[in-house]
Amino acid sequence: MRPDGSRRVFEGGVVSVDVEQWGDHEREVVRHPGAVAIVAVDAAGYVTLVRQFREPARKRLLELPAGTREADEEPLATAKRELREEAGLAGGEWRLAATFFSTPGFCDELVCIYFAESVVQTERHLQADEEIELVRAPVAEIASLLPELEDAKTLAGLLLYLRAR
Amino acid sequence: MRPDGSRRVFEGGVVSVDVEQWGDHEREVVRHPGAVAIVAVDAAGYVTLVRQFREPARKRLLELPAGTREADEEPLATAKRELREEAGLAGGEWRLAATFFSTPGFCDELVCIYFAESVVQTERHLQADEEIELVRAPVAEIASLLPELEDAKTLAGLLLYLRAR
Repeated sequence: MRPDGSRRVFEGGVVSVDVEQWGDHEREVVRHPGAVAIVAVDAAGYVTLVRQFREPARKRLLELPAGTREADEEPLATAKRELREEAGLAGGEWRLAATFFSTPGFCDELVCIYFAESVVQTERHLQADEEIELVRAPVAEIASLLPELEDAKTLAGLLLYLRAR
Repeated sequence: MRPDGSRRVFEGGVVSVDVEQWGDHEREVVRHPGAVAIVAVDAAGYVTLVRQFREPARKRLLELPAGTREADEEPLATAKRELREEAGLAGGEWRLAATFFSTPGFCDELVCIYFAESVVQTERHLQADEEIELVRAPVAEIASLLPELEDAKTLAGLLLYLRAR
Protein backbone atom coordinates (compact mmCIF):
# COMPACT_ATOMS: atom_id res chain seq x y z
CA MET A 1 0.00 0.00 0.00
CA ARG A 2 1.38 3.37 -1.06
CA PRO A 3 0.00 6.91 -0.82
CA ASP A 4 -1.45 8.60 -3.90
CA GLY A 5 0.88 11.52 -3.31
CA SER A 6 3.38 12.88 -0.83
CA ARG A 7 5.07 16.19 -0.16
CA ARG A 8 7.99 16.78 2.19
CA VAL A 9 7.11 19.60 4.58
CA PHE A 10 10.15 19.33 6.89
CA GLU A 11 13.56 17.82 6.27
CA GLY A 12 15.66 17.47 9.39
CA GLY A 13 18.85 15.77 10.45
CA VAL A 14 17.10 13.02 12.44
CA VAL A 15 13.44 13.21 11.42
CA SER A 16 11.53 14.51 8.43
CA VAL A 17 7.81 15.02 7.90
CA ASP A 18 5.77 14.13 4.84
CA VAL A 19 2.15 15.04 4.22
CA GLU A 20 0.71 12.09 2.32
CA GLN A 21 -2.46 11.90 0.28
CA TRP A 22 -4.45 8.69 0.82
CA GLY A 23 -7.61 8.78 -1.27
CA ASP A 24 -9.56 11.76 0.02
CA HIS A 25 -7.66 12.26 3.27
CA GLU A 26 -4.21 13.54 4.21
CA ARG A 27 -1.84 12.06 6.78
CA GLU A 28 1.16 13.68 8.45
CA VAL A 29 3.89 11.04 8.62
CA VAL A 30 7.09 11.53 10.63
CA ARG A 31 9.96 9.69 8.95
CA HIS A 32 12.68 8.17 11.09
CA PRO A 33 15.47 5.75 10.07
CA GLY A 34 14.53 3.25 12.80
CA ALA A 35 16.18 2.24 16.03
CA VAL A 36 17.65 -0.67 17.95
CA ALA A 37 17.54 -1.40 21.68
CA ILE A 38 19.23 -4.13 23.68
CA VAL A 39 18.37 -6.15 26.78
CA ALA A 40 21.98 -6.90 27.72
CA VAL A 41 22.61 -9.37 30.54
CA ASP A 42 26.02 -10.51 31.80
CA ALA A 43 27.05 -13.91 33.11
CA ALA A 44 26.38 -12.76 36.68
CA GLY A 45 22.72 -12.11 35.78
CA TYR A 46 22.87 -8.30 35.72
CA VAL A 47 21.05 -6.22 33.12
CA THR A 48 22.59 -2.87 32.15
CA LEU A 49 20.31 0.14 31.61
CA VAL A 50 21.20 3.74 30.82
CA ARG A 51 19.91 6.92 32.40
CA GLN A 52 20.15 10.05 30.28
CA PHE A 53 18.50 13.41 29.75
CA ARG A 54 15.87 13.32 27.01
CA GLU A 55 15.10 16.77 25.67
CA PRO A 56 11.54 15.95 24.47
CA ALA A 57 10.67 14.54 27.92
CA ARG A 58 12.37 17.45 29.76
CA LYS A 59 13.95 14.97 32.15
CA ARG A 60 16.26 12.02 32.61
CA LEU A 61 14.84 8.62 31.72
CA LEU A 62 15.93 5.08 32.51
CA GLU A 63 16.10 3.12 29.27
CA LEU A 64 17.56 0.16 27.45
CA PRO A 65 20.82 0.96 25.65
CA ALA A 66 19.66 2.03 22.20
CA GLY A 67 20.60 3.84 19.06
CA THR A 68 19.38 5.12 15.75
CA ARG A 69 19.83 2.93 12.68
CA GLU A 70 22.32 3.89 10.01
CA ALA A 71 21.36 3.60 6.37
CA ASP A 72 24.27 1.37 5.42
CA GLU A 73 24.38 -0.85 8.52
CA GLU A 74 22.48 -3.99 9.48
CA PRO A 75 20.41 -3.46 12.67
CA LEU A 76 22.31 -6.18 14.53
CA ALA A 77 25.60 -4.41 13.74
CA THR A 78 24.15 -1.11 14.94
CA ALA A 79 22.97 -2.76 18.15
CA LYS A 80 26.39 -4.30 18.86
CA ARG A 81 28.13 -0.99 18.16
CA GLU A 82 25.73 1.02 20.33
CA LEU A 83 25.97 -1.43 23.23
CA ARG A 84 29.75 -1.17 23.17
CA GLU A 85 29.79 2.62 22.85
CA GLU A 86 27.08 3.42 25.40
CA ALA A 87 27.52 0.66 27.93
CA GLY A 88 30.98 -0.76 27.29
CA LEU A 89 29.57 -4.25 26.77
CA ALA A 90 30.55 -6.69 24.03
CA GLY A 91 30.42 -10.34 23.05
CA GLY A 92 27.65 -12.64 24.23
CA GLU A 93 24.84 -14.54 22.56
CA TRP A 94 22.49 -12.35 20.52
CA ARG A 95 18.98 -12.86 19.19
CA LEU A 96 16.29 -10.64 17.71
CA ALA A 97 13.41 -10.64 20.24
CA ALA A 98 10.85 -8.33 18.63
CA THR A 99 10.35 -5.65 15.98
CA PHE A 100 7.67 -3.01 16.47
CA PHE A 101 6.60 0.50 15.55
CA SER A 102 7.07 2.99 18.38
CA THR A 103 3.96 5.01 17.46
CA PRO A 104 2.46 3.87 14.15
CA GLY A 105 -0.38 6.39 14.04
CA PHE A 106 1.92 9.13 12.81
CA CYS A 107 5.53 7.83 12.59
CA ASP A 108 7.33 5.08 10.65
CA GLU A 109 10.03 4.42 13.26
CA LEU A 110 10.60 0.66 13.56
CA VAL A 111 12.44 -0.59 16.66
CA CYS A 112 14.39 -3.87 16.76
CA ILE A 113 14.77 -5.31 20.27
CA TYR A 114 17.70 -7.68 20.82
CA PHE A 115 18.44 -9.94 23.75
CA ALA A 116 22.21 -10.18 24.38
CA GLU A 117 23.20 -12.68 27.06
CA SER A 118 26.61 -13.38 28.60
CA VAL A 119 27.94 -9.99 27.49
CA VAL A 120 31.32 -8.97 28.91
CA GLN A 121 32.78 -5.67 30.08
CA THR A 122 34.98 -3.69 27.70
CA GLU A 123 35.71 0.01 27.09
CA ARG A 124 33.02 2.67 26.60
CA HIS A 125 33.29 5.14 23.71
CA LEU A 126 30.72 7.85 24.34
CA GLN A 127 30.16 10.53 21.73
CA ALA A 128 31.06 14.08 22.79
CA ASP A 129 27.46 15.13 23.51
CA GLU A 130 26.42 11.99 25.40
CA GLU A 131 26.15 12.02 29.19
CA ILE A 132 24.95 8.57 30.06
CA GLU A 133 24.82 7.00 33.51
CA LEU A 134 24.96 3.21 33.61
CA VAL A 135 22.52 1.41 35.91
CA ARG A 136 23.14 -2.28 36.59
CA ALA A 137 20.42 -4.37 38.19
CA PRO A 138 19.98 -8.08 38.84
CA VAL A 139 17.45 -9.60 36.44
CA ALA A 140 15.46 -10.69 39.51
CA GLU A 141 14.96 -7.00 40.37
CA ILE A 142 13.64 -5.90 36.96
CA ALA A 143 10.06 -6.29 38.19
CA SER A 144 10.67 -3.71 40.91
CA LEU A 145 12.03 -1.25 38.32
CA LEU A 146 8.94 -1.41 36.09
CA PRO A 147 6.99 1.41 37.82
CA GLU A 148 9.94 3.75 37.20
CA LEU A 149 10.13 3.07 33.45
CA GLU A 150 8.68 5.75 31.18
CA ASP A 151 9.93 4.58 27.80
CA ALA A 152 7.83 2.27 25.63
CA LYS A 153 10.65 0.22 24.08
CA THR A 154 12.27 -0.31 27.49
CA LEU A 155 9.01 -1.51 29.05
CA ALA A 156 8.22 -3.78 26.12
CA GLY A 157 11.79 -5.12 25.87
CA LEU A 158 12.18 -5.92 29.56
CA LEU A 159 8.69 -7.41 29.86
CA LEU A 160 9.41 -9.66 26.87
CA TYR A 161 12.71 -10.68 28.44
CA LEU A 162 11.03 -11.59 31.73
CA ARG A 163 8.67 -13.89 29.83
CA ALA A 164 11.37 -15.45 27.67
CA ARG A 165 14.05 -16.39 30.18
CA MET B 1 14.73 21.79 32.29
CA ARG B 2 13.87 24.02 29.36
CA PRO B 3 15.64 24.72 26.05
CA ASP B 4 17.58 27.95 25.57
CA GLY B 5 15.58 28.62 22.45
CA SER B 6 13.05 27.00 20.13
CA ARG B 7 11.75 27.62 16.65
CA ARG B 8 8.72 25.96 15.06
CA VAL B 9 9.72 24.47 11.71
CA PHE B 10 6.47 22.60 10.94
CA GLU B 11 2.97 23.15 12.25
CA GLY B 12 0.56 20.36 11.38
CA GLY B 13 -2.91 19.24 12.36
CA VAL B 14 -1.69 16.29 14.46
CA VAL B 15 2.03 16.85 14.95
CA SER B 16 4.36 19.83 14.86
CA VAL B 17 8.15 20.00 14.89
CA ASP B 18 10.33 22.38 16.90
CA VAL B 19 14.08 22.76 16.56
CA GLU B 20 15.31 23.47 20.08
CA GLN B 21 18.62 24.94 21.20
CA TRP B 22 20.12 23.18 24.24
CA GLY B 23 23.45 24.79 25.11
CA ASP B 24 25.64 24.22 22.06
CA HIS B 25 23.52 21.56 20.38
CA GLU B 26 20.18 21.51 18.58
CA ARG B 27 17.42 18.93 18.93
CA GLU B 28 14.52 18.23 16.58
CA VAL B 29 11.45 17.59 18.75
CA VAL B 30 8.18 16.27 17.36
CA ARG B 31 5.26 17.64 19.38
CA HIS B 32 2.18 15.51 19.88
CA PRO B 33 -0.79 16.05 22.22
CA GLY B 34 -0.40 12.59 23.79
CA ALA B 35 -2.47 9.44 23.55
CA VAL B 36 -4.46 6.92 25.53
CA ALA B 37 -4.79 3.15 25.03
CA ILE B 38 -6.99 0.65 26.80
CA VAL B 39 -6.68 -3.01 27.78
CA ALA B 40 -10.42 -3.68 27.85
CA VAL B 41 -11.61 -7.02 29.23
CA ASP B 42 -15.22 -8.11 29.58
CA ALA B 43 -16.80 -10.28 32.27
CA ALA B 44 -16.31 -13.37 30.10
CA GLY B 45 -12.54 -12.78 30.11
CA TYR B 46 -12.18 -11.55 26.52
CA VAL B 47 -9.90 -8.66 25.57
CA THR B 48 -10.91 -6.52 22.58
CA LEU B 49 -8.24 -5.37 20.12
CA VAL B 50 -8.58 -3.39 16.91
CA ARG B 51 -7.04 -4.05 13.52
CA GLN B 52 -6.69 -1.06 11.22
CA PHE B 53 -4.58 0.27 8.39
CA ARG B 54 -1.77 2.51 9.59
CA GLU B 55 -0.43 4.73 6.85
CA PRO B 56 3.08 5.16 8.34
CA ALA B 57 3.44 1.36 8.63
CA ARG B 58 1.98 0.75 5.15
CA LYS B 59 -0.11 -2.08 6.57
CA ARG B 60 -2.81 -3.14 8.98
CA LEU B 61 -1.76 -3.54 12.60
CA LEU B 62 -3.36 -5.24 15.57
CA GLU B 63 -3.49 -2.77 18.46
CA LEU B 64 -5.15 -1.79 21.69
CA PRO B 65 -8.10 0.57 21.21
CA ALA B 66 -6.48 4.01 21.44
CA GLY B 67 -6.89 7.66 20.65
CA THR B 68 -5.21 11.02 20.63
CA ARG B 69 -5.65 13.27 23.64
CA GLU B 70 -7.76 16.41 23.36
CA ALA B 71 -6.50 19.64 24.89
CA ASP B 72 -9.57 20.20 27.05
CA GLU B 73 -10.25 16.59 28.12
CA GLU B 74 -8.86 14.46 30.95
CA PRO B 75 -7.06 11.37 29.60
CA LEU B 76 -9.47 9.02 31.41
CA ALA B 77 -12.42 10.73 29.70
CA THR B 78 -10.65 10.44 26.32
CA ALA B 79 -10.01 6.75 26.96
CA LYS B 80 -13.64 6.03 27.85
CA ARG B 81 -14.88 7.96 24.81
CA GLU B 82 -12.45 6.22 22.44
CA LEU B 83 -13.26 2.76 23.78
CA ARG B 84 -16.96 3.39 23.22
CA GLU B 85 -16.49 4.86 19.75
CA GLU B 86 -13.93 2.37 18.42
CA ALA B 87 -14.96 -0.82 20.16
CA GLY B 88 -18.51 -0.21 21.40
CA LEU B 89 -17.50 -0.99 24.98
CA ALA B 90 -18.52 0.97 28.08
CA GLY B 91 -18.76 0.73 31.86
CA GLY B 92 -16.42 -1.44 33.88
CA GLU B 93 -13.72 -0.81 36.45
CA TRP B 94 -10.93 1.48 35.26
CA ARG B 95 -7.42 2.15 36.50
CA LEU B 96 -4.35 3.88 35.13
CA ALA B 97 -1.76 1.14 34.57
CA ALA B 98 1.22 3.05 33.15
CA THR B 99 2.29 6.30 31.53
CA PHE B 100 5.23 6.32 29.13
CA PHE B 101 6.82 8.14 26.22
CA SER B 102 6.41 6.31 22.92
CA THR B 103 9.80 7.43 21.58
CA PRO B 104 11.45 9.99 23.87
CA GLY B 105 14.59 10.53 21.80
CA PHE B 106 12.77 12.82 19.37
CA CYS B 107 9.07 13.08 20.36
CA ASP B 108 7.13 14.28 23.42
CA GLU B 109 4.14 11.95 22.95
CA LEU B 110 3.08 10.56 26.34
CA VAL B 111 0.81 7.49 26.35
CA CYS B 112 -1.54 6.63 29.23
CA ILE B 113 -2.43 2.93 29.42
CA TYR B 114 -5.66 2.05 31.20
CA PHE B 115 -6.95 -1.31 32.31
CA ALA B 116 -10.75 -1.51 32.01
CA GLU B 117 -12.28 -4.68 33.41
CA SER B 118 -15.88 -5.93 33.28
CA VAL B 119 -16.67 -3.66 30.32
CA VAL B 120 -20.01 -4.25 28.57
CA GLN B 121 -21.13 -4.14 24.95
CA THR B 122 -22.85 -1.00 23.65
CA GLU B 123 -23.04 0.83 20.28
CA ARG B 124 -20.00 1.78 18.18
CA HIS B 125 -19.68 5.30 16.78
CA LEU B 126 -16.86 5.20 14.24
CA GLN B 127 -15.73 8.40 12.60
CA ALA B 128 -16.25 8.62 8.85
CA ASP B 129 -12.61 7.83 7.97
CA GLU B 130 -12.17 4.94 10.40
CA GLU B 131 -12.25 1.35 9.18
CA ILE B 132 -11.59 -0.71 12.25
CA GLU B 133 -11.98 -4.46 12.63
CA LEU B 134 -12.62 -5.71 16.17
CA VAL B 135 -10.65 -8.75 17.34
CA ARG B 136 -11.78 -10.45 20.54
CA ALA B 137 -9.50 -12.95 22.24
CA PRO B 138 -9.59 -14.76 25.59
CA VAL B 139 -7.09 -13.29 28.01
CA ALA B 140 -5.52 -16.75 28.23
CA GLU B 141 -4.64 -16.49 24.52
CA ILE B 142 -2.89 -13.11 24.71
CA ALA B 143 0.47 -14.85 25.01
CA SER B 144 -0.03 -16.54 21.64
CA LEU B 145 -0.83 -13.16 20.03
CA LEU B 146 2.40 -11.50 21.18
CA PRO B 147 4.53 -12.50 18.16
CA GLU B 148 1.97 -10.82 15.87
CA LEU B 149 2.02 -7.48 17.70
CA GLU B 150 4.01 -4.69 16.04
CA ASP B 151 2.92 -1.70 18.11
CA ALA B 152 4.91 -0.65 21.17
CA LYS B 153 2.01 0.54 23.34
CA THR B 154 0.03 -2.64 22.60
CA LEU B 155 2.94 -4.91 23.53
CA ALA B 156 3.70 -2.93 26.70
CA GLY B 157 0.04 -2.67 27.72
CA LEU B 158 -0.78 -6.34 27.22
CA LEU B 159 2.45 -7.52 28.86
CA LEU B 160 1.73 -5.31 31.88
CA TYR B 161 -1.80 -6.70 32.02
CA LEU B 162 -0.56 -10.30 31.97
CA ARG B 163 1.66 -9.52 34.97
CA ALA B 164 -1.00 -7.60 36.89
CA ARG B 165 -3.96 -9.93 36.73
